[in-house]
Amino acid sequence: MSAAEETEETPCGEDTPWGEVTPEAARRLLIAAVEAFAERGYHATTTRDIAGRAGMSPAALYIHYKTKEELLHRISRIGHDKALEILRAAAGSEGTASERLAAAVRSFVRWHAERHTTARVVQYELDALGPEHRTEIVALRRESDAAVRGLIEEGVASGEFDVPDVAGTTIAVLSLCIDVSRWFTTQGRRTADEVGALYADLVLRMVGARTLAAPDGSAAQK
Amino acid sequence: MSAAEETEETPCGEDTPWGEVTPEAARRLLIAAVEAFAERGYHATTTRDIAGRAGMSPAALYIHYKTKEELLHRISRIGHDKALEILRAAAGSEGTASERLAAAVRSFVRWHAERHTTARVVQYELDALGPEHRTEIVALRRESDAAVRGLIEEGVASGEFDVPDVAGTTIAVLSLCIDVSRWFTTQGRRTADEVGALYADLVLRMVGARTLAAPDGSAAQK
Repeated sequence: MSAAEETEETPCGEDTPWGEVTPEAARRLLIAAVEAFAERGYHATTTRDIAGRAGMSPAALYIHYKTKEELLHRISRIGHDKALEILRAAAGSEGTASERLAAAVRSFVRWHAERHTTARVVQYELDALGPEHRTEIVALRRESDAAVRGLIEEGVASGEFDVPDVAGTTIAVLSLCIDVSRWFTTQGRRTADEVGALYADLVLRMVGARTLAAPDGSAAQK
Repeated sequence: MSAAEETEETPCGEDTPWGEVTPEAARRLLIAAVEAFAERGYHATTTRDIAGRAGMSPAALYIHYKTKEELLHRISRIGHDKALEILRAAAGSEGTASERLAAAVRSFVRWHAERHTTARVVQYELDALGPEHRTEIVALRRESDAAVRGLIEEGVASGEFDVPDVAGTTIAVLSLCIDVSRWFTTQGRRTADEVGALYADLVLRMVGARTLAAPDGSAAQK
């Protein structure tokens, strides 16, 4: 099945996808761009294709976005801001390093599962960003990396975790979560929540956590 | 940096990439197709682009490949055959389940790192395959999945591993290794071998292995 055949669900809870994009015409164009990029790739998509999908004229598109790259940048920026927000919220919450790392993985995975079409576009089309936008996005990715690395370092310092290679393990944890967007489908056997719970357990094993957080977020002695 | 700016190194040892593709003109076209697909995406690439990159005429291309999809299928088929061969070789070798799982991860990761441009094309353009070719490739992927699942099941049966969710852990292990092709660059801090060794250790942790295989393949008690 092609990525574009799947409708991206609205994540349960507070926020509507792309709710931050206004006016409504600009949002409609952004959603059309995500679908077109996911289906045909950035380079095979024209602004005319995007306008057509949104039921608008190319001239109407140019009112909101000057270039196709501006659309990709907007998608990538919102996606990366959200990812960083999720990781920082979990990192800054109450609890042990294990509980917070498990919470970070659960919500990061859930986002990559529920918003998998967007996440794929954001991940696979990084090279299509202009140099300035690319630098900006790479800086955001470094901050996400730092949020996870900080949590792992805390757990090591407190004796909760046993991690011989913190930098390498950080890359692996983020990579594991991000790649959910590649293989996850809403038609699969597991829900986004179930994958999140499984992955939280696997990540606690990767860091050699002395306590395993239960799926409800509480911690149980191993 | 774009994927296409990096030259894919020849893996050390026995085989030349695409050595199985003959005659030489067919191989040259295949390599040109991998580069073009990685740089611009499958849908934005024409057979004319591919022929041009290979220094050949479109007519010369048609002698070897009838369609662009035939090129993608050939690339995908060879890539998936190789991945399966690597996993089966490790699974069928001598040693404990831990040693063989570690060996499988090491060589699977090394392949995805060394051949990252090819691996990206193979992973990201699956949806562009025709229905018949897609069915064939999905069957090969199921066999790779079964090879890893079999190793994990063996370790569970022998009491070496502690895995509450074998199917889910199998997906995660393969996903972790495959995603190396997304983030690995030859300009990075780690060599393909170093990532392979790190990941073998992380995967043994994920399966709760009672023994940790040392980087040389021998096993040391935890």
